[in-house]
Amino acid sequence: MKQQRIGVWLLGAQGGVATTAIVGLAALQKGLTGNQGLVSTLPQFAALDLLPWNDIVIGGHDIRQTSLYDEAMKLATVSRAIDGGLIDQLKAELDAIDDRIRPGVLFNVGPTIEKFATDSLRDHVESPRDSIRRVQQDLQAFQESNQLDQVIMVNVASTEPPIDPASLPTTWEQLNATLDDGSTCQLAASSLYAIGALELGMPFINFTPSLGSAPPAICELALASDTCHMGHDGKTGETLLKSTLAPMFANRNLEVMSWVGHNIFGNMDGKVLDDPANKQTKVTSKDRLLGQIFGYSPQTLVSIEYIESMGDWKTAWDHIHFRGFLGTPMTMQFTWQGCDSLLAAPLVLDLIRFTERAHRNGDRGLLTFLASFFKSPLGIEENDFGRQFQMLEAWADGVRPA
Amino acid sequence: MKQQRIGVWLLGAQGGVATTAIVGLAALQKGLTGNQGLVSTLPQFAALDLLPWNDIVIGGHDIRQTSLYDEAMKLATVSRAIDGGLIDQLKAELDAIDDRIRPGVLFNVGPTIEKFATDSLRDHVESPRDSIRRVQQDLQAFQESNQLDQVIMVNVASTEPPIDPASLPTTWEQLNATLDDGSTCQLAASSLYAIGALELGMPFINFTPSLGSAPPAICELALASDTCHMGHDGKTGETLLKSTLAPMFANRNLEVMSWVGHNIFGNMDGKVLDDPANKQTKVTSKDRLLGQIFGYSPQTLVSIEYIESMGDWKTAWDHIHFRGFLGTPMTMQFTWQGCDSLLAAPLVLDLIRFTERAHRNGDRGLLTFLASFFKSPLGIEENDFGRQFQMLEAWADGVRPA
Amino acid sequence: MKQQRIGVWLLGAQGGVATTAIVGLAALQKGLTGNQGLVSTLPQFAALDLLPWNDIVIGGHDIRQTSLYDEAMKLATVSRAIDGGLIDQLKAELDAIDDRIRPGVLFNVGPTIEKFATDSLRDHVESPRDSIRRVQQDLQAFQESNQLDQVIMVNVASTEPPIDPASLPTTWEQLNATLDDGSTCQLAASSLYAIGALELGMPFINFTPSLGSAPPAICELALASDTCHMGHDGKTGETLLKSTLAPMFANRNLEVMSWVGHNIFGNMDGKVLDDPANKQTKVTSKDRLLGQIFGYSPQTLVSIEYIESMGDWKTAWDHIHFRGFLGTPMTMQFTWQGCDSLLAAPLVLDLIRFTERAHRNGDRGLLTFLASFFKSPLGIEENDFGRQFQMLEAWADGVRPA
Amino acid sequence: MKQQRIGVWLLGAQGGVATTAIVGLAALQKGLTGNQGLVSTLPQFAALDLLPWNDIVIGGHDIRQTSLYDEAMKLATVSRAIDGGLIDQLKAELDAIDDRIRPGVLFNVGPTIEKFATDSLRDHVESPRDSIRRVQQDLQAFQESNQLDQVIMVNVASTEPPIDPASLPTTWEQLNATLDDGSTCQLAASSLYAIGALELGMPFINFTPSLGSAPPAICELALASDTCHMGHDGKTGETLLKSTLAPMFANRNLEVMSWVGHNIFGNMDGKVLDDPANKQTKVTSKDRLLGQIFGYSPQTLVSIEYIESMGDWKTAWDHIHFRGFLGTPMTMQFTWQGCDSLLAAPLVLDLIRFTERAHRNGDRGLLTFLASFFKSPLGIEENDFGRQFQMLEAWADGVRPA
Repeated sequence: MKQQRIGVWLLGAQGGVATTAIVGLAALQKGLTGNQGLVSTLPQFAALDLLPWNDIVIGGHDIRQTSLYDEAMKLATVSRAIDGGLIDQLKAELDAIDDRIRPGVLFNVGPTIEKFATDSLRDHVESPRDSIRRVQQDLQAFQESNQLDQVIMVNVASTEPPIDPASLPTTWEQLNATLDDGSTCQLAASSLYAIGALELGMPFINFTPSLGSAPPAICELALASDTCHMGHDGKTGETLLKSTLAPMFANRNLEVMSWVGHNIFGNMDGKVLDDPANKQTKVTSKDRLLGQIFGYSPQTLVSIEYIESMGDWKTAWDHIHFRGFLGTPMTMQFTWQGCDSLLAAPLVLDLIRFTERAHRNGDRGLLTFLASFFKSPLGIEENDFGRQFQMLEAWADGVRPA
Repeated sequence: MKQQRIGVWLLGAQGGVATTAIVGLAALQKGLTGNQGLVSTLPQFAALDLLPWNDIVIGGHDIRQTSLYDEAMKLATVSRAIDGGLIDQLKAELDAIDDRIRPGVLFNVGPTIEKFATDSLRDHVESPRDSIRRVQQDLQAFQESNQLDQVIMVNVASTEPPIDPASLPTTWEQLNATLDDGSTCQLAASSLYAIGALELGMPFINFTPSLGSAPPAICELALASDTCHMGHDGKTGETLLKSTLAPMFANRNLEVMSWVGHNIFGNMDGKVLDDPANKQTKVTSKDRLLGQIFGYSPQTLVSIEYIESMGDWKTAWDHIHFRGFLGTPMTMQFTWQGCDSLLAAPLVLDLIRFTERAHRNGDRGLLTFLASFFKSPLGIEENDFGRQFQMLEAWADGVRPA
Repeated sequence: MKQQRIGVWLLGAQGGVATTAIVGLAALQKGLTGNQGLVSTLPQFAALDLLPWNDIVIGGHDIRQTSLYDEAMKLATVSRAIDGGLIDQLKAELDAIDDRIRPGVLFNVGPTIEKFATDSLRDHVESPRDSIRRVQQDLQAFQESNQLDQVIMVNVASTEPPIDPASLPTTWEQLNATLDDGSTCQLAASSLYAIGALELGMPFINFTPSLGSAPPAICELALASDTCHMGHDGKTGETLLKSTLAPMFANRNLEVMSWVGHNIFGNMDGKVLDDPANKQTKVTSKDRLLGQIFGYSPQTLVSIEYIESMGDWKTAWDHIHFRGFLGTPMTMQFTWQGCDSLLAAPLVLDLIRFTERAHRNGDRGLLTFLASFFKSPLGIEENDFGRQFQMLEAWADGVRPA
Repeated sequence: MKQQRIGVWLLGAQGGVATTAIVGLAALQKGLTGNQGLVSTLPQFAALDLLPWNDIVIGGHDIRQTSLYDEAMKLATVSRAIDGGLIDQLKAELDAIDDRIRPGVLFNVGPTIEKFATDSLRDHVESPRDSIRRVQQDLQAFQESNQLDQVIMVNVASTEPPIDPASLPTTWEQLNATLDDGSTCQLAASSLYAIGALELGMPFINFTPSLGSAPPAICELALASDTCHMGHDGKTGETLLKSTLAPMFANRNLEVMSWVGHNIFGNMDGKVLDDPANKQTKVTSKDRLLGQIFGYSPQTLVSIEYIESMGDWKTAWDHIHFRGFLGTPMTMQFTWQGCDSLLAAPLVLDLIRFTERAHRNGDRGLLTFLASFFKSPLGIEENDFGRQFQMLEAWADGVRPA
């Protein structure tokens, strides 16, 4: 196989997750870090001929005015999440990527996200279709100037307020017709980005709870454009644990009466989620899997609170109250102290490699075998993390040799 | 299928697990409790034609002088584990079972267990083969007087000190030759019981970490006797969680640096485990699975401590220290507050039903599909609880119709 | 000293706290339980000549139609908090007290509390002064028919929505003038009860976060009536821990950056607090002490959530994020699993005994030496539990011999 | 008052606690850090005219061959406890202090500590009195060459195996007579150091659980030498919490049935404590206060385990099982995640300042008002942290103006 060059276009390219993924990728390219947290480097995927780290070129959109180096340094000094010495070794690489970041799209993202944007972006008026066209111009310029064989778009931007998919047109033709006029279009930026990429045949991955490519009309577009996509909402911490522990309770017929989860953290994602509208999108995504795994609905409570001192460290406390034999109530509690960006970033890199391989393999439409990476995997009802992971392994076993 | 009557012979028949299993079975027979904690009542096993609760008759061995009603009441008043009102409704049933409990075997059980035994049992001298013969007479008398189609032996007695299986003869012929003389026989009571049952063609289930039927020579005997067996060490609490959570860390390539587990509880099992010799058997069983799941060996620590006030409530605190992306250390902690006997007892009832069905199905030798029930499943290397449970489901799918 | 008979008039007399206090008092009178949880039985108060349990007679108001026996049994069966056998031994005593419970006052208690009330109470129209008069008639009838030397009123009713004390008239004369007309009176039931008792010279204790006797105008009335009172909000669980742990952080100069507390429980108090208006009263009371102890204001978060399965078991998880030497962030977490009514009830009995003794000692106005019993002690700024307790001990040292 | 220069002589001068105290002192001298963790900077001590940071000169003994800079960097890179950038700014100061560190004393420290020592130190043979003389020469040389008005010795070396004080001579004359011969002297290094300092009239502070100046004979020496001393075992983490929380349980008459504490950490102190002999000294010190606070003895368990991955982060899990009203069992659990050296180091600096001030004030013998700093305060039975702290405040109120 001839050497490929693959572009990765990150939405929210200077946010915490993107910054960490970029720092990590640069460190991997220079051999400065190990494989911890990277699923795609596990032995069971060794024969897959996955994309080498050095063949990846990063670009992206952001709505803020900042630099990757400054954002990375905040993760080192405020959150004590990344080693500052490592970041210093990568400054040249980070600065080079800053030059490939273009102004993003603000359509329907809500006032909480808007207030982080630059003034010029906030004052810029364009129709949804204009935004899509602008995104596509950025993508094509990125591909051409970097001589890329393929570009994959990954959404790691802040969570948008919820949109009811049932209220949207169900065919691409109908949805497309709403894009010319901001007053008729009910989509938000994440979906416009997705349309932009998919129309160009570029794969789209939605790592956030925002709507993205989830509407059936956009799924139709992906198939028509002969490309693939998947989402949504990266499964990094508390929900990963829920999807691991809940099957155990189910398999042992222990009746879960209530499952309470409190999450505290202090990064920018936390500030955005402090807006109840944006938070609702997230909480729904975290909470729905229990009913599906148990076949009944225990009382559940999920809170996400912004506590500034926590920085990027997300701490979850879960209290699971269950009934065992003879109806006796018992309790399991856990606390999870993880660094949010460091849990998410390697999954972003994994998704890029698996998606690139799947596209090369001819997989089209929703990549349901990636379910283990998402809180709310599209197109598939399986919520047991162990079984989701077996789907990934089974896909790997079935991939055609490169 | 004609109506069967199945005898269940419990070793340690008046201990905490047996008492709870007996109370629970009686409550199920009278319709006084629900199905919580009973795996065999899950929908995926509904078509298996499993043994009805009413077809089970209980007998057993114990080394102490007590009554099931008194033992059950301790679980109600000291531990607040079972409702005392329920026990009162079942007193007649419990008293009837007391009449079918015979004096057990003390051979090589160690001084900590011996001191719970009755004086007459401690003073009684017999060779290992004499003990086996006495056990067999008890089993045959039980079967005849209760007109039982089949008898299944289940070991829920206290944990014996460890025996190195490598030091034992590897064929049944050789092992059998050691049984006539207490000074040459290296087995302990749990294995003598197993030999007694298996020689009669009766299935044997070892719910404890004691040696039981694990030696190859006894496995040979089971096959020669055309029967089935399985063990060992029921997976009820902390280890269940380890075998559920460890695969998640492995699948996400999160490097577990250390896994510390502290267990406190205050029942008789706890008193026996306070003897370092007996405890060693248990700790080894709890600790070995991590290396097998990870493919490397994190530092591990498992403590089991007798804290009288806890009664039957076993509380485990686990601290998992792992390295994520870019080598950053993170932490998960959990506390598990479960009632030991109530977690174990339903699994004993499940094992009886699955074993009876497997024997009826023609399964012989080690029943490896029962791996999910054991900390150290015999004859199988799988330690991921989710995958073990899928083995049970796959077996159920393949069972011949009754 | 001649034998006294002391009446205790409980507001919310069939609620969880009152029921538990009554069961406990009856058990103490019959010698069926120990002293755990009772502060007034500590050795340092042995010389105080406190009221014997047998000299106490219980009566009270409630707005619901129920019985003490039924309420106590719920605590036994639903919450596994009290032993059902004990309650059965006390049925006659509980039934006798039911006969001394009179319909309560609903004025301004808010819709969430109102919906628990009987229809006749909800339909009953009376002015605030009418309510006070009715309360006083009940108190006087109770005193006369039971030949009581003294009556002490204790509020253990559900939490009312908050009232801004700054909006109230500041003198008794002015406040009294508002009581004839429901449309001008801004007080709620808890304050009407307090006025009723204090006007009769009877001590009043407010164990709840409701306003009660806190307004300066009512404090004036208490002094004018030559009696004593204290409040408010019994300090039973998470706040007790805060007032114990926060001084340690302060004394060690560890800078608390954030203190997050999540409380879950499932009793009727929880249902009432699920109404955001009622909850606000409580959260404010739980949260204010940290700033006073530290002298600066860390970010704080307090949640109280109704989780039905928890019953009377209140579980609090607190996460304290602090900065040590060289600015390094560190963490303390605790979980508190306490039975709400069982933590509150003995304090109610203690308060009765200490208040009775203080009144006999000639103490008038606010009994600030009782600060250690309250989340928001009236008339005193001390929030360090240890120092509050020393105030109680100092008072005991200074009490005139009986 | 004229400007003083005060020498501080640290035993174990390159260990984790000393290194952190030295880094912290240098950072304070250069104004590079805040006051977190420093008790002596609290407002209530502002009028005391305590020693300014810039008047302190550091020297000390150590048995290893290392450098302060390297030890500090381990705390930055392995444990992520101190910011590496800060250490780099202080390299010149750390190197200068290295030049003032002299080889320590190995007498009776046990094999686990011995194996950390340099070969020349291990091979050096001297009598106890020779060791004392060598220590005194080092102290006097330090004082002279640095023109110090006073020198204070502080023991922060590794914990020695336990010595039974009852086996020692009770007068200084008798004890002194044992010092000429290593075979008759039952003391260990910590006491020889103490004797060396006290004979010179220099104050001695024992921050470790080793014996130090605790024997009555050495207390006699301190008074005879007109100087002061205190110990022992700095109260930094779990025991600080015990001495804060236990009084709350006592004051509320909540009967603690069991108190279990598990501590894990991975620094050199942890390696030394992994030797059961050394650990015993520590566990005893952590465990004794509960019985004294409660007046009865709950079942207790304290474990300290070396878990390498934890580095300097000590995590304690405590499980407190108590009985409330009506005998109902309840539970409190906490986890404390603190950086061991960072919790200890500021207390060392505080003790230096308070001891210097007390000596200047004329205080002689045991400085019992420092009880709040120690797990096992000498000469005083008070174990309630709040009351201990009030003793410190009371002392401060009584100090003569400078």
